[in-house]
Parts: sequence; C-alpha cells; structure tokens
Amino acid sequence: MNNFAIAVHGGAGPDSDSIRKHKKELEKGIQRALDKAYDLLEQGGTAVEAVEIAVRELEDDPLFNAGRGGAINSKGEIELCASIMDGDNLQSGAVAIVKNVKNPITLARAVMEKTSHIYLGSYGALSLAQELNLPMEPDAYFITEKQFDAYKEKRDQVGGNAQAIAKEQVGERMHGTVGAVAVDKKGRVAAATSTGGTEYAKEGRIGDSSMIGVGSYANNKTCAVSSTGDGEYLMQQVTCFHVHALMEYGKMNLKRACKHFIRDVCKDIKGDMGIIAVDPKGNVAIEFNSVRMHRGWKTCDGDSFVGIYQEE
Amino acid sequence: MNNFAIAVHGGAGPDSDSIRKHKKELEKGIQRALDKAYDLLEQGGTAVEAVEIAVRELEDDPLFNAGRGGAINSKGEIELCASIMDGDNLQSGAVAIVKNVKNPITLARAVMEKTSHIYLGSYGALSLAQELNLPMEPDAYFITEKQFDAYKEKRDQVGGNAQAIAKEQVGERMHGTVGAVAVDKKGRVAAATSTGGTEYAKEGRIGDSSMIGVGSYANNKTCAVSSTGDGEYLMQQVTCFHVHALMEYGKMNLKRACKHFIRDVCKDIKGDMGIIAVDPKGNVAIEFNSVRMHRGWKTCDGDSFVGIYQEE
Repeated sequence: MNNFAIAVHGGAGPDSDSIRKHKKELEKGIQRALDKAYDLLEQGGTAVEAVEIAVRELEDDPLFNAGRGGAINSKGEIELCASIMDGDNLQSGAVAIVKNVKNPITLARAVMEKTSHIYLGSYGALSLAQELNLPMEPDAYFITEKQFDAYKEKRDQVGGNAQAIAKEQVGERMHGTVGAVAVDKKGRVAAATSTGGTEYAKEGRIGDSSMIGVGSYANNKTCAVSSTGDGEYLMQQVTCFHVHALMEYGKMNLKRACKHFIRDVCKDIKGDMGIIAVDPKGNVAIEFNSVRMHRGWKTCDGDSFVGIYQEE
Repeated sequence: MNNFAIAVHGGAGPDSDSIRKHKKELEKGIQRALDKAYDLLEQGGTAVEAVEIAVRELEDDPLFNAGRGGAINSKGEIELCASIMDGDNLQSGAVAIVKNVKNPITLARAVMEKTSHIYLGSYGALSLAQELNLPMEPDAYFITEKQFDAYKEKRDQVGGNAQAIAKEQVGERMHGTVGAVAVDKKGRVAAATSTGGTEYAKEGRIGDSSMIGVGSYANNKTCAVSSTGDGEYLMQQVTCFHVHALMEYGKMNLKRACKHFIRDVCKDIKGDMGIIAVDPKGNVAIEFNSVRMHRGWKTCDGDSFVGIYQEE
C-alpha cells in the first residue's frame, strides 16, 4: 500500500477583519474537507474522488469563495469556475462562467468522465449540468450577506465604473479560491480547484482556477498541484504545470520545487501566490508568499495540520 | 538590431479533398499573413503587433477555421476563441465563446492592453468588444458554405446526438486553428492563436487555443510558441509552456526543445500535435506529427518557406 495523503486550501491573500473574526469557523471548514477526503482515501477511494469531495465540502461552505458564498460580479451575479485533473491518465475537465450549479467541481469531473470535451463554459456547461441532472440551486442560494456587503460597498464607491474596480481588485487582491490535492493508496495523484471569482469583476471573467496547468495540474510521474492568489501572475507563470516542470526537467523533489517556485521564480512578483502539492510517495508541500493562506493536510502516517497565517 | 522573424500556422491534422483542392489558396493565405507581419516588423513594429496582424489576416480568410470560416457547433452557431501573449512583460489576453466579433485576436489584445482582466468569455467578452467599438459582423459573415456542408453532414449522420459527434471529433480530428509567433528588431517575442473550434462541438466549448500556456506562450527569456492539433492532448501536455520549460529547465535550444517535445515527449500520443516557435535571437522552429500543417516563416536573413504537407 502506498502512503496516502490529502491537502486542501481555501485561498491565499491579505488579512481582513472578517478572516480574524471567522478564523475558527474557517479552520473547521478546512478540517471537515480534510476529514471527508481522508476517510474516503482510507477506505480505498481514488485520488480523484478525494479531491472532488474535499472541494465540494468547501463549495458548500458559505465562508469560502467557491460555490455558495462566491464573489458577486459587477452585474450582481455569481459566476463559478472549476477544474479537475487525474494524474493517472492525464485526463482533465473544467468549467467556467457557470451559474446555478451547486457544485462546479462535480460538473468539471462530469466533463472529464462523461463527455469527449474538456473545457465548457457558460450556457454549454449549464446545459450539460441539466442533461446529467446535477443538483441546481436558485441565485439566492449562492448569495451570502458578506459577499453582498462587499459588492454593495464597491458599487457605491465607483458608481458602476467597472474599470476602476478592476484596477482596484488587482491592487487590493480581492480574490479567493479553494483547492485540493491527493495521493491515494495506489499512488495515483489528482488536483481540483474551484472559485467564485473576484468581487465586482466584469461579467464573463474566466478564472485562472479553471485553467489546466494554471489552476490545477496532476501527473503521476511528478505531483499534483492546486494554486491560489492573483490570477494574472498565476497565469503568466503557468503555476501548477511550472511545479511539475521543475520536478520533471529541473530534477527537484516536491518540497524543493514548491519552495523554489514561490521563493525564487516568483520572488519579484508583486502579488499573492500560493500552492499546495503532493507527490505519488505521499509527501505534502505547501508554499505561499502572502500573510495568510487557509490550508491544511492530513497524511496516513498521522501528520496533520490546519492553519491560516504564515507564522502558524 | 536584432534578427527579426515571423512564423505562422493554419492548423495541423489529416489530409482532405478540400485541402488538396484549395492547396494554392491556402498557401497564398499563409503568404499574405507572413508578408503583412514581416513588413510591419521591418518597419520597426513590435512582435505583438506582428502576431496580431498575421492572425487577423488568417481570421479574415474564409479558408481557415478562425474568425470568418469558423467551424459550426451543434447548435448551428460559430463561437470563437483567441489568445495573445507578450514575451517582453509576460502580459496576456484571451477570449472564449465569442460571437460576432470580426477579429477575436484583436479583442484578446484589447483584454491584455486595455483592461485589468486577462481572460473573458461569452457575453462579457462581447460587451467589451462593444464598449471598445471593435468591428462586429452578423452571423452570416462568419458562415462559409464549406463549414455549413460539414455541419449539415454531421447533423444528418447523428440526428442531433451531440455526444456521438463529440466522440467522432476526437477520432476524426476535425479541428483547426491559426497562429503566429514573432521576434522583433528589439529581440522581443510574442505569440497569438485563434480558432473557430471543432465541427458540431457542444455549445460553450472553450478552445485550448484560448488558454495561456496551452494555445500560446511567450517569454523573452526563451521563446514564443503557438500550438495546433487535438485540444485534449495539447492541454494535458500544457504544450506551449512545456516548450518554454524544456528550454528554461531542460537547457535545450529552441530547435531541440521543439523536436524533443513532438518526437519524444508526445511520441505515444494518438493525436495531432503541431507547434511553431521563435526565440529572441531570430531562430524559427516548426514541428508536427500529422500528415499536414499549413505553415510558413520569413526571416530577415532572407529565409522563407510556405507549405502544407510533412514532406515539403
């Protein structure tokens, strides 16, 4: 039996009053996602099943910016993005600009396993969810008071000037993501990532979280990685595949590749970057440059951690 | 002054009666795109301007599956995708599931240069095009008889069974893309890619061509790359960034990286893969595993080529 392990994140970025206030609930949410995925792995579940169940748990938790509790865009709507990749066969699935689907990560997995497509957006993704009878929810389900207050504050500030807000987003780093990586008892790895986007974003924004290579990447030869932070920088660095490439071509091990990526490759980047990763041997690595990243891991040799701030 | 060069492609894949019949016009289209971009580079234009003008030329040409002449999806509609990346500053822009915008590559460049976003889809991309007064065309402009015949044949075959068609697409490799890479007199590189998608695809399909890292990637440290072929495989290999990684971490030069990628990394892949690439010194590399790839290049030292088949 291979060493199995699960790691999850709930977004990297600056500190806030809301995060300090909800620290315990946020940690409980991370712990629940870890426990559900760990139990599934212990019972012989696959890495793909484990990352899906962990991300579903965080999508259902209104405190995280994914699924319920997603950020509200400049049109007052919530558009969701998600991606999943199976390191065993390099198959992947992703969805973008999706509304009303309770668990975008489950829809992404359905794209991977039940269609010949890989990446569907907007009404095409919605029609697949309907064909497959995936659970749907009305708009009201997704909207939380916290996200509505953030939306209203932005709207009042700019009087609807979406360009000004978009600039501010990059400056204030108003983003959020959830993700999971797992290695199962057979040494297979998988990655999954889901997001509600950025506050007051232009409608139709496609999140980096939904891009294979940027938001998620998994390959049994090296590792599984999920990223979070400033989309612009995650994309220009092709973050998750970058970690794979450091292992495959830079001949680094998992921990060195993750550390080198955040501390050296991205050292001049003025934005938040965070990654969680596992390798097929059961090693876990987490690196980020921001003051906080909601995160945790649980491995079959009894190692476990849940925390929010850098110094924890 | 740095050596400058331009390379373009018009898609890789199997041979067909239509390609044999239109070989001369296809070659003329590639030549026009090369000439326009070359003239611009000679006059001191930037690599970004050169790849945009080359791709625009191919988008306007109804014989190529991008812009006018895009593939018709299973709902009888044409949805376009494009991406562009500036290797000088790693800025990028991309659009997906776009209708009625005459030149999706110009919209992708506008996302890069005029917004704080990177990747917009569907009605969000359309509203940006409207805000910027980019040229729009009615549906009729984009539809060619050749693509309509292909659509009708598929529809008659499957009686509207989109899943059966999607499977067939992967088998028959019905896809098409255009792309360009350039290095300018200042040694800056850029890449651009645009597609009309795959015939009879599910509505809302997001093309790999629009994904930074997969469809396009550019970095002055190494190279600029544009890809074409089977989206599934291009995505799982994160094709364009993969070539960058082979140079950056595998310590290969441009030609070796491209050759190694297609012939070794992808040797067991049962799908079409094609790449065009330039490095900041003005070298050009083109590799593909399919029987044909519409392609050409033109360099400031007088080297020039236009061809379709592998043996040319």
